[in-house]
Amino acid sequence: MFDTSPILNGNRRALARVLTQIENGMPEAEAALGALFPHTGRAHLIGVTGPPGSGKSSLVNELAKAMRSAGSTVAIVAVDPSSPFTGGAILGDRIRMRDLAGDPGVFIRSMANRGSLGGLARSTADVVIALDAAGFDKILIETVGAGQAEVDIARMAHTVLVVEAPGLGDDVQAIKAGLLEVADVLVVNKSDQPGAEAAVRVLRASLDLAHPVARQWAAGALRPPPLTPPPSKAGEGSGVWIPPLLQTVAVQGRGVTELMDSIEKHHAYLHTSGELDNRERERLEHELEQHLREFLLASLLTRLGSGSYNAALEQIFARQLDPARAARQLVEQMQHPAHA
Amino acid sequence: MFDTSPILNGNRRALARVLTQIENGMPEAEAALGALFPHTGRAHLIGVTGPPGSGKSSLVNELAKAMRSAGSTVAIVAVDPSSPFTGGAILGDRIRMRDLAGDPGVFIRSMANRGSLGGLARSTADVVIALDAAGFDKILIETVGAGQAEVDIARMAHTVLVVEAPGLGDDVQAIKAGLLEVADVLVVNKSDQPGAEAAVRVLRASLDLAHPVARQWAAGALRPPPLTPPPSKAGEGSGVWIPPLLQTVAVQGRGVTELMDSIEKHHAYLHTSGELDNRERERLEHELEQHLREFLLASLLTRLGSGSYNAALEQIFARQLDPARAARQLVEQMQHPAHA
Repeated sequence: MFDTSPILNGNRRALARVLTQIENGMPEAEAALGALFPHTGRAHLIGVTGPPGSGKSSLVNELAKAMRSAGSTVAIVAVDPSSPFTGGAILGDRIRMRDLAGDPGVFIRSMANRGSLGGLARSTADVVIALDAAGFDKILIETVGAGQAEVDIARMAHTVLVVEAPGLGDDVQAIKAGLLEVADVLVVNKSDQPGAEAAVRVLRASLDLAHPVARQWAAGALRPPPLTPPPSKAGEGSGVWIPPLLQTVAVQGRGVTELMDSIEKHHAYLHTSGELDNRERERLEHELEQHLREFLLASLLTRLGSGSYNAALEQIFARQLDPARAARQLVEQMQHPAHA
Repeated sequence: MFDTSPILNGNRRALARVLTQIENGMPEAEAALGALFPHTGRAHLIGVTGPPGSGKSSLVNELAKAMRSAGSTVAIVAVDPSSPFTGGAILGDRIRMRDLAGDPGVFIRSMANRGSLGGLARSTADVVIALDAAGFDKILIETVGAGQAEVDIARMAHTVLVVEAPGLGDDVQAIKAGLLEVADVLVVNKSDQPGAEAAVRVLRASLDLAHPVARQWAAGALRPPPLTPPPSKAGEGSGVWIPPLLQTVAVQGRGVTELMDSIEKHHAYLHTSGELDNRERERLEHELEQHLREFLLASLLTRLGSGSYNAALEQIFARQLDPARAARQLVEQMQHPAHA
């Protein structure tokens, strides 16, 4: 039986050990996660995503400092779905360490891709379980890129922060639109640079398009339901959340407190609206399904043995059988071994 | 029983119908794919990926024209993993239509994301099966972005072409490194623009790093095995493939023939080295596994009924049971219903 008390009592070494077990896919991790899971559900999970060059890392560092000043403990998970080859995560980690080192209320973990993308998403989910159990008030999950995969990882969070910056090019519009749809809070960082106002205008317009409610407000077609604030107080009520659009200059610390306040307001909204429950349910059901897929595949391979599996593969290679039909036959065979 | 003859005989309407069934996840698609699969394995699958702004679409159009001139039939699959909201794929499609329309030897299909990323990857694989059976010599699979997900989709191909361009920013280095590892042929497009030579130098250095064999050649540490050409003839032998680095200006058609020749050389290399077989096996096994995961999950839900599944979910929501253990219990329960 895994002894959870060191982690629950704030022992960082014990926490780091479990995180390493999770990252390396070691069997011990499963027992640890099972024992830690009942102690989760308290942390506020904040996903941070946006294109390379938007200054996400600096902003996350400043946010962490602001949250510390406001009395919260903070964990940062930096997820790099690009290759382990780059060493990007490790470099970012060191820069951070210099900034935030020595504060026992901050914990930083970088995760690079070891194997499949699906594997990374699952180990990130497990790392978040351990950090939540360890009692961190805020868990910032930062992704390196802004592809669909990164968006999916950021979506694990309760509050999704999308970071943009001026001058990243018009070609990324397509990606931006995908990002906007998942944004709970939107920020234009590097707002002291040329083009910041233009970026804000473009995003404001896209935001109005991406959020049907905001669009209906704008068109005057929606009469406010009793609990909903007027559009001028967007993001403050408990009825409808319209993602606020903020501006920051992270390297100078400008706008960071206001950003933190917006994130807090979103958290409060999630609680009062009941939306927190919905997001938790969706998130946990997704995790259950992922585990089921993996366990079922492993179980099929064990039960059928490599013979049947390899025979099916050879038939596929010979183009005698398509992969979908082969899969159905293997599932059949496992369920009715007598027919085999 | 699905009648394959219209598709095998080049009927475009029949082909388009099946592609729509695949994209919409219609049950008819499965029978069609099963019947078409034995007729696959002839096409050369070429994945094209690279960051937004690198001019991938123009380059793919020019490549398609060059391949047509060389006597091959060509299908283009444009995959946009960003939201359907953007309409990006449809726009690209129209621009293409103007350029390549009226040529019966070219077929173009755009695919946007409808649902999950995994779903898109699988339907792309299925679309490729149908196009391969329909007899296209070359199938160009172009992704819109260059995140890990896009790289995974491009990897489905036999030959992976990575497109870069000058001036896309230094911040994308991390992404570049991940891309380089999967590149069989590397091209700097927009090579008439400032910074092209610098981009080539950076990529050349990264390429040397990313490819251990190239690195060892460079260091003089590797004695050429009998069948391997000296580094000066990189990419031409049958022993080791060192990704060539080319320059193009797609909008002027410059460098496109040379690029097509490099792609052809890679295809020849795949055949003579036996690597084509390895890539096919890896690709088809991956497809089998994906189908198994989905069918097994569906089968579990059917067999257990929603009662057990929902009960497990409620225990997870109440933090009484972690998702991994819940998954194990459900699998157990399905396999030994008596214990339930």
